[in-house]
Amino acid sequence: MSVPAAVVAAMRATNERFSRAVAARDIAAFDAIYTSDALILPPGAQPIQGREPIKAFWQSALVGMDVKAAVLEAVDAELLGPHVFEIGRGVLTVGAGQQVAVKYVVQWRQEDSLWKWHVDIWNPNQ
Amino acid sequence: MSVPAAVVAAMRATNERFSRAVAARDIAAFDAIYTSDALILPPGAQPIQGREPIKAFWQSALVGMDVKAAVLEAVDAELLGPHVFEIGRGVLTVGAGQQVAVKYVVQWRQEDSLWKWHVDIWNPNQ
Repeated sequence: MSVPAAVVAAMRATNERFSRAVAARDIAAFDAIYTSDALILPPGAQPIQGREPIKAFWQSALVGMDVKAAVLEAVDAELLGPHVFEIGRGVLTVGAGQQVAVKYVVQWRQEDSLWKWHVDIWNPNQ
Repeated sequence: MSVPAAVVAAMRATNERFSRAVAARDIAAFDAIYTSDALILPPGAQPIQGREPIKAFWQSALVGMDVKAAVLEAVDAELLGPHVFEIGRGVLTVGAGQQVAVKYVVQWRQEDSLWKWHVDIWNPNQ
């Protein structure tokens, strides 16, 4: 089923929140991006469960990769039961300006009136 | 919602079909693994849409990586609307016996009375 326009707008707001949080290295902002019991499956690492460990991962990853910016774009999204299944692509700007293209799948859930990432897996295009 | 036992069994059969297809390099068997309009998001490559291009990818990847065996294990699966969302892990055996651990998310759909992979994204643990 297609995703209601209000949910699409809420999803876009969360993705823009992620872009701002990355640019500002504002890890506290991730509270409004991931659900409390979210799971991430990062390339080159074990799965990480729970928002606090996920925030620690991103703190380390943003500094370690010197991520300056992140832009996400939904390619396809569908409502599956009470949740949303999204396929997307993104570009990270790292270091002196290198662009890293990635693709991802996110399962979205509503929590505290926000739409957040509940399961998040991605990998690089190159 | 939890996945009905009959669907769990059908999913396991598909995963075992994948293991046999990989071991035998039997690309034709992928017709019973991926839906006709499936999408895969492989690490180090662009997204690939459609079963025939996906079969060409696997033909090349199995030979190129010299994959000898693949074992998949569901970690979590839930029924979302008419489809299934699965989080899993796998081990590929390549070359002279090196083990490559991966994790994945698959959206499953029923097609031709089989449960098949409709969206498939994975990445390595190391």
